[in-house]
Amino acid sequence: MSQLPGIGKRTALRLVLHLLKQPEQQTALLAGSLQKMREEIRFCNNCHNISDTPLCEICANPKRNAAIVCVVEDIRDVMAIENTSQYQGHYHVLGGKISPMDGIGPGELTIRSLVEKVAQGTVEELIFALSSTMEGDTTNFYIFKQMEPYDVTTTTIARGISVGDELEYADEVTLGRSILHRIPFETSLKNQ
Amino acid sequence: MSQLPGIGKRTALRLVLHLLKQPEQQTALLAGSLQKMREEIRFCNNCHNISDTPLCEICANPKRNAAIVCVVEDIRDVMAIENTSQYQGHYHVLGGKISPMDGIGPGELTIRSLVEKVAQGTVEELIFALSSTMEGDTTNFYIFKQMEPYDVTTTTIARGISVGDELEYADEVTLGRSILHRIPFETSLKNQ
Repeated sequence: MSQLPGIGKRTALRLVLHLLKQPEQQTALLAGSLQKMREEIRFCNNCHNISDTPLCEICANPKRNAAIVCVVEDIRDVMAIENTSQYQGHYHVLGGKISPMDGIGPGELTIRSLVEKVAQGTVEELIFALSSTMEGDTTNFYIFKQMEPYDVTTTTIARGISVGDELEYADEVTLGRSILHRIPFETSLKNQ
Repeated sequence: MSQLPGIGKRTALRLVLHLLKQPEQQTALLAGSLQKMREEIRFCNNCHNISDTPLCEICANPKRNAAIVCVVEDIRDVMAIENTSQYQGHYHVLGGKISPMDGIGPGELTIRSLVEKVAQGTVEELIFALSSTMEGDTTNFYIFKQMEPYDVTTTTIARGISVGDELEYADEVTLGRSILHRIPFETSLKNQ
């Protein structure tokens, strides 16, 4: 148990002693659930999001627009974007970023499946929503290059100062982007 | 001295005692500089930025584009945007935001001078760069309405997640804006 993230030897001991105090079937139940979770949760065949069916809830929903695909690093990003309720398209979960330092090349990610999806011609727009670190930028650029033969628009999420933030406390790079990528005032009114 | 912001009675006493220990002309020099600052620093006739000449350095610079005017709340915002080195237009310093709670109406701000500037027809774009608080939004909207008779584009700075930030730690409103106001990937490449 002490091998789980955030659980050290002391916490592991406390958890184990707690389980020993409880009736035996309690532990059997927990062990069973864990086993079941590991066996039943699969990844969506289309977007690689977690799912207990071959197609995840998002990909299976006919109301979502399959022509727009948002490329994210992992499942937590899907959750973050879903929480905004502002996005009605599909996702594509890469499973990480290209990072030679950590031994992660394009082959370790689901980029090939993304290229195949785009090659079918139904995707109109790819939205890059990776973090703007060196690895994120590299991954974006790699995918962008892979998309050159296909007729697909590539966009990236807007970077700028947060809603409610004061200008004077924003870092220069972010504030600079905010100004360069300004939007028509009427567009912003619609989203308030 | 204790009436200055951030200086209490104890600090004021320490400062006064320090001045008393120094030679007399030291204090005379400080008093003179303060007097001179108050007398000589004026506000730019065009943009209401601080300036020691009738036109501030930015308005007087022929390399800056007078057709683009960035509307900001105060001088600190001008400094913040200048630090980004990404903006080559002019400014218009409002001197505050419309805030009925604090007794600040449109008449207390430099809005009339902005309308007069736009009425001359040389301004092509107004960029709203106020904070996205209720007061900021009200002020933006008030100015937007005042501009209706004139042929001027109004834009607002982009709001979104900061450069380098992870998606999962961004608030929903900001992340939602980031997605709605996404930009072409090639545009973002140019600004990296």
